[in-house]
Amino acid sequence: MSDAVWRVLAERGFDGLTIRAVAAELGSSTGLVSHYFPSKKALVAHALAVAGERTAHRALHTPPAEGLAGLRAALLNVLPLSGEMTAINRAWVSSWDAALADDGLGADEAARLAGWREKVAGHVRTARERGELPPGTDPEETAAGAAAFAHGLVVHALFDPGRYPERRQAALVDAFLDGLAAPSS
Amino acid sequence: MSDAVWRVLAERGFDGLTIRAVAAELGSSTGLVSHYFPSKKALVAHALAVAGERTAHRALHTPPAEGLAGLRAALLNVLPLSGEMTAINRAWVSSWDAALADDGLGADEAARLAGWREKVAGHVRTARERGELPPGTDPEETAAGAAAFAHGLVVHALFDPGRYPERRQAALVDAFLDGLAAPSS
Repeated sequence: MSDAVWRVLAERGFDGLTIRAVAAELGSSTGLVSHYFPSKKALVAHALAVAGERTAHRALHTPPAEGLAGLRAALLNVLPLSGEMTAINRAWVSSWDAALADDGLGADEAARLAGWREKVAGHVRTARERGELPPGTDPEETAAGAAAFAHGLVVHALFDPGRYPERRQAALVDAFLDGLAAPSS
Repeated sequence: MSDAVWRVLAERGFDGLTIRAVAAELGSSTGLVSHYFPSKKALVAHALAVAGERTAHRALHTPPAEGLAGLRAALLNVLPLSGEMTAINRAWVSSWDAALADDGLGADEAARLAGWREKVAGHVRTARERGELPPGTDPEETAAGAAAFAHGLVVHALFDPGRYPERRQAALVDAFLDGLAAPSS
């Protein structure tokens, strides 16, 4: 069932994610799908939970790194650098339409974004302690900037994959990190 | 008609932007709305064109600035720093669901994003000529990073307006620009 939801989502976006479309993908009745997902909102919430699990699973299998290297790994981990991360990001960016129009889904998304910024801030703190970032670095503000940069890069790369090959995305991350590491003016 | 489309969009997102909802907002028949917008896709394209016009109109009325000040003004101009820009950005971010699921809308969005990066690159070139950015600055790559940063900040601020007051958004832009202006390591 999860795979069918995922396939419909990847092909048609959240707007096309309907109980009828999932039933057609499964070759089953809409009644069966409705039994698991009583509403479109339940379908959307399920798809987002699957996307979150997949991303967390990836992060667990990324070699641990500390400080600036950990920050770099965290930013690279969210970018569409593979087919799987492109599919996850398409689903995630598509979900913002529904999330912006629904208070509950919107609050969930705000919490997910804040949680990720906090994780990034942890790497910034360690990098500062190790002397890899200037002593005046503010972890929360630096993390907010880094998270904005990475998520905006996700959007630009998704819409224009030909202009954002893997190497260019990584180079943009490195240039951004160089800006953080430079002594502030 | 445009205002009704806009109101439905602001309240329900693109997923809720239907011919029936626009007709209800107008108190008219669906036939009348269908006469102007024969499909949901036509409605979506119209709403995006209106959003583009509103943003361009704002840019025209922003005091001209050159070099680094022009770059700063261009980034601030897209952020949700006012009620109007919040509404425009909600519509724009919401539109990515439909744009990622439709080749034509996706190509339009890719072209809009590339056009904005080119405009930002122009400010970077002028700033470099004026000695406000290091001589080794690459305009296209710097613009790609700045555009990613600004658009990601749009998303974070939309979902969490309480944590992203106007002053913080502007401070994050200034910190990002400081990173560009610092001598590269």
